Amino acid sequence: MYQVEIRQGSRIEKYSVPSGYSLFRLLKEKGFYMDSLCGGKGFCGKCKVRIVQGDISKGRCSPDEAGHLSFVERKEGIRLACRVQINEDLAVEVPEGIQRDAAILVEGKGDVVLNPRVVKRYVELSNPSLDDQASDVDRIEEVLGAPGRLRPAALRGLPETLRAHDFKVTAVFFDQDIIAVEGGDTSETKYGVAVDIGTTTMVGFLIDLTTGQQLDVYSAINPQRQYGADVITRTDFTLENEDGLALLSKLVRDEINNMLRAFCQKWAIRSDMIYHMTVVGNTIMMHLFAGLPVRNIAVSPFIPVIARSFELEPWQVGIDMCPSGRITILPMVAGYVGADTIADILASGMAERDELALLIDIGTNGEIALGNRKEIITCSTAAGPAFEGAHIRYGMGGVKGAISRVRISKHGIEYDTIGGQPARGICGSGIVDVVAQMIKAGIMDTTGRIKSAQEVKADLPDALVSRVIELDGKPALLIASREEGALDDIYICQKDVREVQLAKAAIASGIHILMKEMGVRHEDIQKVYLAGGFGNYIDYDHAADIGLIPSQLRSKVIAIGNAAGAGAKMALLSKEYMEMAECIRNKTRYVELSSHPDFQNVFVDFLPF
Amino acid sequence: MYQVEIRQGSRIEKYSVPSGYSLFRLLKEKGFYMDSLCGGKGFCGKCKVRIVQGDISKGRCSPDEAGHLSFVERKEGIRLACRVQINEDLAVEVPEGIQRDAAILVEGKGDVVLNPRVVKRYVELSNPSLDDQASDVDRIEEVLGAPGRLRPAALRGLPETLRAHDFKVTAVFFDQDIIAVEGGDTSETKYGVAVDIGTTTMVGFLIDLTTGQQLDVYSAINPQRQYGADVITRTDFTLENEDGLALLSKLVRDEINNMLRAFCQKWAIRSDMIYHMTVVGNTIMMHLFAGLPVRNIAVSPFIPVIARSFELEPWQVGIDMCPSGRITILPMVAGYVGADTIADILASGMAERDELALLIDIGTNGEIALGNRKEIITCSTAAGPAFEGAHIRYGMGGVKGAISRVRISKHGIEYDTIGGQPARGICGSGIVDVVAQMIKAGIMDTTGRIKSAQEVKADLPDALVSRVIELDGKPALLIASREEGALDDIYICQKDVREVQLAKAAIASGIHILMKEMGVRHEDIQKVYLAGGFGNYIDYDHAADIGLIPSQLRSKVIAIGNAAGAGAKMALLSKEYMEMAECIRNKTRYVELSSHPDFQNVFVDFLPF
Repeated sequence: MYQVEIRQGSRIEKYSVPSGYSLFRLLKEKGFYMDSLCGGKGFCGKCKVRIVQGDISKGRCSPDEAGHLSFVERKEGIRLACRVQINEDLAVEVPEGIQRDAAILVEGKGDVVLNPRVVKRYVELSNPSLDDQASDVDRIEEVLGAPGRLRPAALRGLPETLRAHDFKVTAVFFDQDIIAVEGGDTSETKYGVAVDIGTTTMVGFLIDLTTGQQLDVYSAINPQRQYGADVITRTDFTLENEDGLALLSKLVRDEINNMLRAFCQKWAIRSDMIYHMTVVGNTIMMHLFAGLPVRNIAVSPFIPVIARSFELEPWQVGIDMCPSGRITILPMVAGYVGADTIADILASGMAERDELALLIDIGTNGEIALGNRKEIITCSTAAGPAFEGAHIRYGMGGVKGAISRVRISKHGIEYDTIGGQPARGICGSGIVDVVAQMIKAGIMDTTGRIKSAQEVKADLPDALVSRVIELDGKPALLIASREEGALDDIYICQKDVREVQLAKAAIASGIHILMKEMGVRHEDIQKVYLAGGFGNYIDYDHAADIGLIPSQLRSKVIAIGNAAGAGAKMALLSKEYMEMAECIRNKTRYVELSSHPDFQNVFVDFLPF
Repeated sequence: MYQVEIRQGSRIEKYSVPSGYSLFRLLKEKGFYMDSLCGGKGFCGKCKVRIVQGDISKGRCSPDEAGHLSFVERKEGIRLACRVQINEDLAVEVPEGIQRDAAILVEGKGDVVLNPRVVKRYVELSNPSLDDQASDVDRIEEVLGAPGRLRPAALRGLPETLRAHDFKVTAVFFDQDIIAVEGGDTSETKYGVAVDIGTTTMVGFLIDLTTGQQLDVYSAINPQRQYGADVITRTDFTLENEDGLALLSKLVRDEINNMLRAFCQKWAIRSDMIYHMTVVGNTIMMHLFAGLPVRNIAVSPFIPVIARSFELEPWQVGIDMCPSGRITILPMVAGYVGADTIADILASGMAERDELALLIDIGTNGEIALGNRKEIITCSTAAGPAFEGAHIRYGMGGVKGAISRVRISKHGIEYDTIGGQPARGICGSGIVDVVAQMIKAGIMDTTGRIKSAQEVKADLPDALVSRVIELDGKPALLIASREEGALDDIYICQKDVREVQLAKAAIASGIHILMKEMGVRHEDIQKVYLAGGFGNYIDYDHAADIGLIPSQLRSKVIAIGNAAGAGAKMALLSKEYMEMAECIRNKTRYVELSSHPDFQNVFVDFLPF
């Protein structure tokens, strides 16, 4: 047995664990919250911890981790918890990450606010007799007191449940409603699922609503993707095909059912013990999930059917959970600022503080929010999915074999891949690195034009000049080659740079216009929250260099990971957070960039690097 | 054109109508309430009115009416409204019948309490623009004010409805919920249906919820009947067949859908404009309709799954009405005192008065209630369906060709049939007549033994002696014969008398025990309400003679017709009546006769006539 001391914020605990035990598993079991997209498989690189004490703190790491850790991180003893086996006494520091989220996921602490809408009560009822002929429903409702009323769907199995368990049963409340009656004492067993439906990726979290612990994570490609990489293509699909809406709805619902099935199998849970699901995503994703037409979101003036939060019963969307359970769709702001942004804001905590904060969520679209406890303004930028690797010639998502870090120096080009595997393509953080360094090295001018080998020959070392080649008649930069062990020759071409340029100009314009709308300057902004997986990986200096983040705010950037998912979890764990989400919607104003008088000019101004 | 003056209670109206116009139609159109089971086809004999002035007041009537009107009635100018064509100036008196019900069904009167849970509001919304990007739901909810929230099922068609009607729409509220949004101004078009699911007969009423008018009546045999004439047989069917419960549920739901289809076709109504349905019936019928198991109602201690009122959404029971509409099942008292009894009590008004009243509903079972505004006690008697003609050798329901009146005199036996048609069998009122007069005439002794021809030969005129014959070795009385024009030889046999004897003893015992429980005497009871179709037809003197009604209460009997159906209509028309139904449940206590210490003795005491 080894002694492991774990610190997260003010929480310090010591545990004895057997040799070879997974640090990731220990942290999960003990309720230390870490964001993890891949569930501990070493893909996502999110479960970073600092080994403060122990031999393995000396900068060694497994090949799996290499692509996720910078040189500095390695030197500071940062490791991926999922890759650490405990084979000595350790002291570990777990970053607080999304601090509020961490707080609620830790049980038994002073700052815990575990207050789910699902509550269970075990009751022992008297047996019926000729002197007490109360109906089954009266019998149970009387004991539970006035507010609780049994939902009709919970009635059918009731007589048998009561009689099979000698009238000792557990009532499951959702708010005031009794949504199920279960035999015996099951009061400690209740589950919820938080789902983030991204345009590209869907992530689900299985939460134990008794302890507040996150038990599991499931992620999958959004199966709608085969009908279009972005929301506009998918919207068109629903307009051009009579059953298009039904089909896209079914795809995402089926994938959620796959998720629930996986959770239930792995954790030996009956699907009807999942009582509550919170769902976030952009407004079109929320509409498609609910089966609502998206036609009017796609065309000016971009009107959604619904933007407030709403609740569905599982049967309405064919989700395999407790039949009388609830599915809560978090509130949205507008057609292009969705429940994911509200969840981001919720998870960041910016809506409760006096300090002014900027939040940027770069996913398939780029949403921006600026504000504090008084007011928040938001906008959506047509940033496109360039930073997710889409529309980039050799682009790919942040999965194994993706080039995630690039260093251009006089010695040539070095890169890291995720999982340390042979390079297959380049993901968002790698693209940002390349573009920033191409300018710095003089391979590209500030208008975004890649120079030809002829032009750079005089100024650059040969190691670089040899990599500037021509692709389709235009200059391009060879990042990795088969000769050097990559699975393919991987270039950044002129069109790739233009994609990045359009995307970063869109985001920078959005930030600029929001700041102007609110009448604030860079120095007024205290924090910049970077939400989304992308924010975890990119080099902030490089992002600032290319103008994706205003360089004045560089030092204020905090990556908050999958904040949308964290917000969905918070709304699941506590009524108060759900109410907070409603409040955020109420205080949030949407700024339509497409019709903003300044937008065209600002956008053009921001195009150069 | 003829002048017709119509009086109902304090309401007096004059109308000009074209020659040949149906009096029934006029009364319905003008909102004069009459109970009518057959919808004006001349079968049910319920739409009795008194012609006060006009040639047709002189006692003439059509052959159709003959079986429904007594000699005295004919002399007093009573006619069936559905058989009267207006071919002269008339003055007509419409009985108040179920007076409270009549009151609410009359529009624009001081005593109208039309307050349905369905309310419509027409709104003209502003069109969306880039300056007003509110979602469709926000747009409509904002105008309608805070309390109204759109139900998810109403969302899908919303964007198209709004845009197809230039954002001029009608919101349909059910309580606080917005259950539908309709294009244009439909605020005057709203319908509800009240349904009485009897063990034998189902009756539905189509109500215009804008005017409170009853538009139509539909009646049908309960299709479950093929699986058993009484609730016990049907319960057994659900226990012995795996899909039995589902099958019986489906049968009654299908018949309700038939009803709705008939209403919609006849009145050119879209099914989604039927927003609310109230349902009454005995507890087992309510369970079968809702798809709830009835196993425990059938065996001691006779526990229903649910006895309080509850609401279903149409999809839950596959009913073809407004998808977000509601189906309200009225409250029940116990396993054998159901929503029909609560509705009877509601319609009688006995729960709001100080005077003590007795209510008897003789249908397939016999339910009895005793009480006033302070408290009500109820019981159920296993009276069986003898008075509906079941278990009677030549028994039949109250349809065309049934012997409904019998007179035994020294000249022999005379009878009337419903519709004046050749006799096919004998219905409940005829059976009561026969049994009462067999005793009076000395054909039967007070123990219920029919005397043989030998025994009566000395005392009776030949015209009667010739009718006392032997059937299966036992004495029987020939009521009608083929020789005299009947379709069959129709007898009352010994077993028939025993059935009547058991039924009347059960009801009389129930009355006796309730009175004893409450400590009241006959003279304390001010009114006796006879609910159910049977109560409309029987001769009260004969009913008292055989001991079905205590003879001391004979003069206090008031027939209130299908009071269960009337109560369902009241709950549909007004929230207050629905609340009243809840109050009735709260003040009503159930007395279990099967375990009552006095029951056996009392029952035996009441067996003799």
